[in-house]
Amino acid sequence: MSPHYLSRDRQVELAQIAQSIATPGKGILAADEHAAIIESRFSPMDIQNNEENRRYYRQMLFRTKECSQYLSGIILCHETFYHKTDDDDIPFPRLLNEMGIMPGITVDRGLIILGGTDNETTTQDGLEERCREYKKNGAQFAKWRALIKIGPTCPSQLAINENASKLARYASICQQCGLVPIVEPEVSLEGDHDLEQCQRVTEQVLATVYKALSDHHVYLEGTLLKPNIVTPGVNCVKTYTIEQIAEATVIAFRRTVPTAVPGIMFLSGGHNEENSTAYLNAINRVQLYKPWVLSFSYGRALQTSVLRAWKGNKNNSEQARKEFLRLTKQNGLASLGQYEISA
Amino acid sequence: MSPHYLSRDRQVELAQIAQSIATPGKGILAADEHAAIIESRFSPMDIQNNEENRRYYRQMLFRTKECSQYLSGIILCHETFYHKTDDDDIPFPRLLNEMGIMPGITVDRGLIILGGTDNETTTQDGLEERCREYKKNGAQFAKWRALIKIGPTCPSQLAINENASKLARYASICQQCGLVPIVEPEVSLEGDHDLEQCQRVTEQVLATVYKALSDHHVYLEGTLLKPNIVTPGVNCVKTYTIEQIAEATVIAFRRTVPTAVPGIMFLSGGHNEENSTAYLNAINRVQLYKPWVLSFSYGRALQTSVLRAWKGNKNNSEQARKEFLRLTKQNGLASLGQYEISA
Amino acid sequence: MSPHYLSRDRQVELAQIAQSIATPGKGILAADEHAAIIESRFSPMDIQNNEENRRYYRQMLFRTKECSQYLSGIILCHETFYHKTDDDDIPFPRLLNEMGIMPGITVDRGLIILGGTDNETTTQDGLEERCREYKKNGAQFAKWRALIKIGPTCPSQLAINENASKLARYASICQQCGLVPIVEPEVSLEGDHDLEQCQRVTEQVLATVYKALSDHHVYLEGTLLKPNIVTPGVNCVKTYTIEQIAEATVIAFRRTVPTAVPGIMFLSGGHNEENSTAYLNAINRVQLYKPWVLSFSYGRALQTSVLRAWKGNKNNSEQARKEFLRLTKQNGLASLGQYEISA
Amino acid sequence: MSPHYLSRDRQVELAQIAQSIATPGKGILAADEHAAIIESRFSPMDIQNNEENRRYYRQMLFRTKECSQYLSGIILCHETFYHKTDDDDIPFPRLLNEMGIMPGITVDRGLIILGGTDNETTTQDGLEERCREYKKNGAQFAKWRALIKIGPTCPSQLAINENASKLARYASICQQCGLVPIVEPEVSLEGDHDLEQCQRVTEQVLATVYKALSDHHVYLEGTLLKPNIVTPGVNCVKTYTIEQIAEATVIAFRRTVPTAVPGIMFLSGGHNEENSTAYLNAINRVQLYKPWVLSFSYGRALQTSVLRAWKGNKNNSEQARKEFLRLTKQNGLASLGQYEISA
Repeated sequence: MSPHYLSRDRQVELAQIAQSIATPGKGILAADEHAAIIESRFSPMDIQNNEENRRYYRQMLFRTKECSQYLSGIILCHETFYHKTDDDDIPFPRLLNEMGIMPGITVDRGLIILGGTDNETTTQDGLEERCREYKKNGAQFAKWRALIKIGPTCPSQLAINENASKLARYASICQQCGLVPIVEPEVSLEGDHDLEQCQRVTEQVLATVYKALSDHHVYLEGTLLKPNIVTPGVNCVKTYTIEQIAEATVIAFRRTVPTAVPGIMFLSGGHNEENSTAYLNAINRVQLYKPWVLSFSYGRALQTSVLRAWKGNKNNSEQARKEFLRLTKQNGLASLGQYEISA
Repeated sequence: MSPHYLSRDRQVELAQIAQSIATPGKGILAADEHAAIIESRFSPMDIQNNEENRRYYRQMLFRTKECSQYLSGIILCHETFYHKTDDDDIPFPRLLNEMGIMPGITVDRGLIILGGTDNETTTQDGLEERCREYKKNGAQFAKWRALIKIGPTCPSQLAINENASKLARYASICQQCGLVPIVEPEVSLEGDHDLEQCQRVTEQVLATVYKALSDHHVYLEGTLLKPNIVTPGVNCVKTYTIEQIAEATVIAFRRTVPTAVPGIMFLSGGHNEENSTAYLNAINRVQLYKPWVLSFSYGRALQTSVLRAWKGNKNNSEQARKEFLRLTKQNGLASLGQYEISA
Repeated sequence: MSPHYLSRDRQVELAQIAQSIATPGKGILAADEHAAIIESRFSPMDIQNNEENRRYYRQMLFRTKECSQYLSGIILCHETFYHKTDDDDIPFPRLLNEMGIMPGITVDRGLIILGGTDNETTTQDGLEERCREYKKNGAQFAKWRALIKIGPTCPSQLAINENASKLARYASICQQCGLVPIVEPEVSLEGDHDLEQCQRVTEQVLATVYKALSDHHVYLEGTLLKPNIVTPGVNCVKTYTIEQIAEATVIAFRRTVPTAVPGIMFLSGGHNEENSTAYLNAINRVQLYKPWVLSFSYGRALQTSVLRAWKGNKNNSEQARKEFLRLTKQNGLASLGQYEISA
Repeated sequence: MSPHYLSRDRQVELAQIAQSIATPGKGILAADEHAAIIESRFSPMDIQNNEENRRYYRQMLFRTKECSQYLSGIILCHETFYHKTDDDDIPFPRLLNEMGIMPGITVDRGLIILGGTDNETTTQDGLEERCREYKKNGAQFAKWRALIKIGPTCPSQLAINENASKLARYASICQQCGLVPIVEPEVSLEGDHDLEQCQRVTEQVLATVYKALSDHHVYLEGTLLKPNIVTPGVNCVKTYTIEQIAEATVIAFRRTVPTAVPGIMFLSGGHNEENSTAYLNAINRVQLYKPWVLSFSYGRALQTSVLRAWKGNKNNSEQARKEFLRLTKQNGLASLGQYEISA
């Protein structure tokens, strides 16, 4: 029931490294200045800022005799981490390890502004640059998928919080880049849970996601939600009618999704084409106030029949397109609650 | 005082995209299956999974006449996003935009296990693979820097929480890869704040960081802390003695940093060589119980004199190394509280 | 800007008490068993559980010679705290203080079940018994008011979280007792803030309140909200139209209040009769989807004219009732957006 | 596994009350002004503020013909709730229920300052006045007990957060009144859990408690902790040595309890006299840095032998005191790690 986080061996290894760095009388050299920072150090001394000078400078420091008496660790940047000594071609990390100095590495990618604050920052992990690039090339919206499992010890509070917080941070970055974020906190179909349990978990997840979006100052009117339909787990023998599933789904959203969100675009999850359409249709027919567009964001449920028609043969393209139009049309109708199964 | 999060124009743009996707009767095609997923769709239909087939398949779908009556958006994966039509060389995003279908893009990088849970996941952003690579190449520890500002409306709760949560997630990933994470929640020297305010913010930040590390099941005995020395802001005219600064620093750590953490390795922040050593020395002399090694993780404060001696000239290397040894030695002594300024 | 939490003198006093209790080689006697617990201790020894025996027993313990060499503190229950020695009539707390033993007191009121958990508990503060009593005597709903201030350093995260959490706990207790909780997180009119700032704070407060209600498993369909109208602070010279105020109010609720909440019953705050009605009317006329009943929960705004008519004279009762009917009727119409000022 | 929060019947009852109050075109009269507020309404009109006038005034309002067409609920204060009509002696709540107006009741007790903020408030529940009274009568410290259970679905995040937050609020109030708060987050011995699970839960609880104390600006140097000893559940057949229990306990505190806390005073929980002393002794002998006084706050473990000697007979007092001194002395020695079982 309670999974180990780290093996005992890994714990011992980590504690030994940490204690070795925290040797009384020793400290760390932070030699992880990237090229732009080095410039500000070299230029006042009239030292040219090129890669070899940077390499040589670090080699000079590392080879200071006796410095390992006072240095237990040295932090490197990415460039330096892959540099080697010029005489005997030893990678710096190995050189340091052999000197009894722990080599370290900076893994963050610099700072990035937190939207809605007085230019406060968080630490970059590369998402923003990709979003700017995609927007420049015509993207209008983006998608980030988080997955929540249901099980005897799942979902944990950590999984819910971590995923909600990541979705919110992603949404904030997207909006700053001009992309509408589709927020996808998928609750997995896998498991033995019943309908009620799926509903409760979905409510808990969505409540946490919308609190996180609020904390991150995300503009809700410029977002969309891509949730699961509330259904029992695939292993659950209990049977529910389509209407029960549709009602549980609508109740869960009424309790958690703000009215300001323009649309809820369901994911098909593991459901087949037929069920995906039937659920969407039934959801739109539930007799409760539903202040959002309730539509689809289907992958497999819009493509299985298409692939079957196409078979990878260009001559079948027309037939494949016909299937595709049929599927999109029937889900378009279902998103209005106007799909008739016999139609 | 209250910064705008998004400009009005940006809000209007985002709301229009979102509403356009949430058009009644329309939905989204999720066509963002990456190559491995496509395999599972193509192979049962005996369709070969190569890039041109993937490209052609998407083109076939996108060019389905009238499908834009039922599709308001299509989500692409990275590969497809940069594909073009074969006849007139139009990038897919442009094709879709011209059809009145919003092109979207998946930006997450798949799932990654959350340590300490029953194989629950969060969504990947690329850090884990880099950490595994660095460990394989000899790295023993890693560093991630977060920066907290002090100002009239700073730090916000968002900045504190977001940075603490990122540090904790980074620390968890590092430990799973066998790297000791150095946790660096730097409180910036910039500003007009006095010593007391810096102490209060430092306490608040550290309390939040250690709660986040606990939430993420980080093994504290295998971590190190790299904090700021508690000092007034650089613009603050008030003067404090080195002893007052050292005492405020120790009190702040006694209130927040668990005993299980082996070492606190100070960053030099904006302090010069002399002050960095003097502060560290004074901190180690404070007459209060301090159950950690209190040492240094200095960059500039271990290098300024070295650069001045070296001047980028290999002939000066010996002299530069002498300076470097002098600095490491005096900080080594300071980490024991044994540095004498006249020495 | 940063208020002292405790004066330096109070800090010194508290630290001295705490250190005195934490004297090496000394500990605490927990003598705070209330009568029911004492029963379980006395009865196996055939000791009668009456107040004098309880008093005598404690006196016997406290007067053990030399016990103050090993006891630094003794915790008392309410009854014992007010007992005295039988020979010289000294209150026990004074007796202990004079012996150099710190007297302590238990202040909680026992355990109470947390709704929605596996009979987990929180510690009682007396609310539940009052709620059961009120329900028994005919109450159908209850009200709890929290007040949030806007100012240069307000609202703090602490104030928002603490008040949201108290409202949620209150709502959970009410529902367990069969009372519908009216949740009142009032954002104060006092201050210089503009309309936008009030809206932002209101959104932040409501997002936090609804997250707390979700955490506490409160059944939203059985609650009502009593919020402020979103208005600029009373000291703010800027003028806004009634329509701007109404729109800001509706936008804030659309972003935060779940659809499942049946009604939002505004408080009049500092607004007079006329404005209270006009705002409510305008709010109901805003051309945005509003999936709740938007009505009033007014005090002063339904009574000022009534009191002026009544003047404390029974002969004026009929006239006073006429005023009261006029006010309730016009607000009833306003809650439908059907109030005409000239009417 | 997933307990019902409210029965279906209770849900229906609550939803009906809430919907009845949220009837379109109707609102609430807030007639819950307590005597001091009424003064400010009556006095400008020259109405005398006595209980009968308050009663009469409310009766006059409630009996306004047709007002129930526009009023769905009326909120009363405590005094009014127990008033009756003067002619036919009907309690006001019954009167209103019969008119089809839902009677409500204000249950909060006014506002109270949040320490460490710019005079922000939370809503009173009566604790502060009791603390002031106890301090005036000689109390120096106070105790508040929270109980955390371990079980298949326990502790829930709600139980941990709610109890941590209550302990922090209690501690803040105590300190404002000059009482040292003893913070007691007891992890129950009941259950089948093993030592490791108890340790993990204890760490999680303590991390949350100290984060809450930080959030509430509690002055740690003026607090004490009263935790459980980390032990397996009573139903757990696994056996551990006293040394293993002592080590797990110390490791848990080293990971969570700040150095600034002067003392950790263990509760005996369900342990008998002998074990309580043996555990405390062993804890003080663990070969790890322990920057606090580790002592006892025992009830039963200091009294069982005393009661057995006393038997409720004054003639046995001397013998009882001898037992009491023996127990306090051996625990005093154990708190120094100097207790020898054979002694």
